[in-house]
Amino acid sequence: MQMPEPDRGVIGRKREIIADLQEILPQESVIYDEDELRAYENDGLTAYRQIPLIVVLPETTDQVSQVLQYCHENSIKVVPRGAGTSLSGGALPLEDGIVLGLGKFNQILETDFENRCVVAQPGVTNLGITNAVEHAGFYYAPDPSSQIACSIGGNVAENSGGVHCLKYGLTTNNLLGLKVVLIDGSILEIGGKHLDSEGYDLLGLMTGSEGLLGVVTEVTVRILQKPASARAVLLGFETSEAAGDCVASVIAEGIIPGGMEMMDRPAIHAAEDFVKAGYPLDVDALLIVELDGPPVEVDHLLERVSEIAKTHGAVYNRISESDEERARFWAGRKAAFPAVGRLSPDYYCMDGTIPRNKLPHVLTRMREMSEHYGLGVVNVFHAGDGNLHPLIMYDANKPGDLEKAEEFGGDILTLCVEVGGVLTGEHGVGVEKRDLMGSMFSEIDLNQQQRVKCAFDPDSLLNPGKVFPQLHRCAELGRMHIHRGQLPFPDIPRF
Amino acid sequence: MQMPEPDRGVIGRKREIIADLQEILPQESVIYDEDELRAYENDGLTAYRQIPLIVVLPETTDQVSQVLQYCHENSIKVVPRGAGTSLSGGALPLEDGIVLGLGKFNQILETDFENRCVVAQPGVTNLGITNAVEHAGFYYAPDPSSQIACSIGGNVAENSGGVHCLKYGLTTNNLLGLKVVLIDGSILEIGGKHLDSEGYDLLGLMTGSEGLLGVVTEVTVRILQKPASARAVLLGFETSEAAGDCVASVIAEGIIPGGMEMMDRPAIHAAEDFVKAGYPLDVDALLIVELDGPPVEVDHLLERVSEIAKTHGAVYNRISESDEERARFWAGRKAAFPAVGRLSPDYYCMDGTIPRNKLPHVLTRMREMSEHYGLGVVNVFHAGDGNLHPLIMYDANKPGDLEKAEEFGGDILTLCVEVGGVLTGEHGVGVEKRDLMGSMFSEIDLNQQQRVKCAFDPDSLLNPGKVFPQLHRCAELGRMHIHRGQLPFPDIPRF
Repeated sequence: MQMPEPDRGVIGRKREIIADLQEILPQESVIYDEDELRAYENDGLTAYRQIPLIVVLPETTDQVSQVLQYCHENSIKVVPRGAGTSLSGGALPLEDGIVLGLGKFNQILETDFENRCVVAQPGVTNLGITNAVEHAGFYYAPDPSSQIACSIGGNVAENSGGVHCLKYGLTTNNLLGLKVVLIDGSILEIGGKHLDSEGYDLLGLMTGSEGLLGVVTEVTVRILQKPASARAVLLGFETSEAAGDCVASVIAEGIIPGGMEMMDRPAIHAAEDFVKAGYPLDVDALLIVELDGPPVEVDHLLERVSEIAKTHGAVYNRISESDEERARFWAGRKAAFPAVGRLSPDYYCMDGTIPRNKLPHVLTRMREMSEHYGLGVVNVFHAGDGNLHPLIMYDANKPGDLEKAEEFGGDILTLCVEVGGVLTGEHGVGVEKRDLMGSMFSEIDLNQQQRVKCAFDPDSLLNPGKVFPQLHRCAELGRMHIHRGQLPFPDIPRF
Repeated sequence: MQMPEPDRGVIGRKREIIADLQEILPQESVIYDEDELRAYENDGLTAYRQIPLIVVLPETTDQVSQVLQYCHENSIKVVPRGAGTSLSGGALPLEDGIVLGLGKFNQILETDFENRCVVAQPGVTNLGITNAVEHAGFYYAPDPSSQIACSIGGNVAENSGGVHCLKYGLTTNNLLGLKVVLIDGSILEIGGKHLDSEGYDLLGLMTGSEGLLGVVTEVTVRILQKPASARAVLLGFETSEAAGDCVASVIAEGIIPGGMEMMDRPAIHAAEDFVKAGYPLDVDALLIVELDGPPVEVDHLLERVSEIAKTHGAVYNRISESDEERARFWAGRKAAFPAVGRLSPDYYCMDGTIPRNKLPHVLTRMREMSEHYGLGVVNVFHAGDGNLHPLIMYDANKPGDLEKAEEFGGDILTLCVEVGGVLTGEHGVGVEKRDLMGSMFSEIDLNQQQRVKCAFDPDSLLNPGKVFPQLHRCAELGRMHIHRGQLPFPDIPRF
């Protein structure tokens, strides 16, 4: 993973930049002491670390605007950061760049039930949105595993998903409006409480753009009423292929479960050892299928799902009889990652997505690859969405093991693309999958993506080195001519 | 409504251009005879007419690519056209431009139940998608009133909605993938059958871009299982304000009806006279609320909706007792536009969206405006979404009446923006609302929108004069320097 050459000039001007930023922000909001900076050296992709030049912690949109305008005028790179839980290195700092942390944007600004939405600052946690409205029976649907920690602004940047996205959609399907600051300091208001919007859909475009197009300082999300009831069923199968076929059949019947998760044998054992979820230990694959809605609908659908499972040879079927039991079923799934941590000194969590009916084929191929590399792989994933999270087990202290794990991971993602899938479901590309983008996109696609980047950030100061394999200079792509020292859009002509 | 000055040079080269296009396409696919061209002179916004220079009817992506590449190289403007049902003039031709009609792209390419999607060519009608899958109990959710005629490609271009979008989302929420040809002839594959995608969300960006960014030649949409049952209730109120309050309360309770439509007194009477839907004639406002799902859930929710309506003073409540009766309730709603056509020689259908809780205020203000202009207004709209469709009644043969109607319409849309809404819900901006975009967007917003346009179509050859009030030259905006005669991105540098 190669990052762009750091700008020695900027590093040499560190003192001066600190002083300038202290003109914009309160003293305590500009962090430059190496010990304090270390807290920001990585995100959830801990294999990569880099101490940033400076960290700033603004608390108003106006401050963000001033910081970005300053960085723009002085050609300083900026890495936006939410809660730092990215699993793809989306918030990995740069030696010659500022980290713009949004931790102080931690207020719920408005709960509006008549328009069924919440307006929040980007540093509010995902669960914080639900906490603000659950007294009235509402919740915010997308639920990443990290939901107690991850920020709603980070969710927008990564278009985060979760167990319930099968039925309720990803972040982009639950987002209504954004306030965004562009690299030149200008402030865009995108969308709002209303349905749809005229003009190009910048709301969609910003979502999942991984901090490369702008910095979000306000988020309006849709909330939903909690379902009247929910029950889950554990379905055990003798092969992962049979479980995969069952998933495809449930969907083909038109049933959309609240969640439909799959675990393979190693995952089942690891989770059961760890939290005693009540999983069967003599099956090769386990599905957890949750149905939600009015009790009578839930009962009816559970019956249909059980029948479908039977035709696919399910050897185990247990329906939760209480909310406690349902919570226990999920506890195993949610503890699967740490549980795998007990099996192996290190693991590498992948995130690819495939068309649902390709599950059996991909699972078989992954098993062959595991033998080829001599590294174990544990599968825990959002089966209903076709969103895989293979955990590759390795030992970082064993020379060459990490490299082997990364190669194995690359092969898995390449396979996902081969069968008509994509490199990521919900973790983003970041630095992790950047160098694989060429396997997914044609040159035409990548150039068009880059033209969009140029329309927002022509100098590539926002989160450079992430998502795209190598940045074209906008000037080359668009035959744009930038005069030395002249800003790319200093005085915008009036309409 | 001012359009850009036509390019006399292009008009003068008409013969030569016809010959060139006949090299790319079969003879019969290049239309240039004035009588035949007249069939394309307007779309659903019939107040505006313009005979195009030439119409081409390609039938493969490759042909579209060659046509666009030719137009790009020869600076010829292109207006893409689906079924021509746009109500905002999105497919209004240009005197100096080619209309690229997609009527020959009329095949369903694939129905895939395991991945719950349909792959279709853009000229397939909206209802054609449902027709292709209903034998298996599935349907395509967004349902514009024009669904028997409008094309799925046009739905993508306008991000079309419909009665059921309250619960099931607009086109953008039901779209999975696109094949798009850019103005330089390059072909992009965006999204697919899988969940989400890496890179910037070009799928979202293309949706609703009104033919200004590219030409869609293949569409992959999500299909849904038909709900187990559906019932509708008619709720009558003594004032539109009370009905508006009731809508806000239903939503605030967390209930999401399949559809929630509102009609005011003139609309009720016109529809009842026309189709005998069984509407009460002594109320000022009527809500049609449809609940769908398992029968027991539907019954329960109908009861809750009725209770809420009662607290808002509903004076009429009738629940459909059969599918025939439910169909009759809807027949009135669906016939409301032609029914108004019997009341007034002409009417002008508006399309603004407001936050749901602003309904009562906006309805009152509209009544005041109606008195001020001396023109009647009939309201039939998607109340649950806050998507208004006021029909302004006028007489085109009465001098000054059309201008008054347009001014009245402009005032309504400006009011929508004032209360935090937007200029369009589902009809698009087109030429109709183009000059109002400045009331919605700041200069910063508009410039950023234009930068996005420049990233796709720097010479502004695709559907110029639509959506945006006046186009900046990309060169000015981005300090882009285009040499005379040199193409904006002729040789794309390799990664």
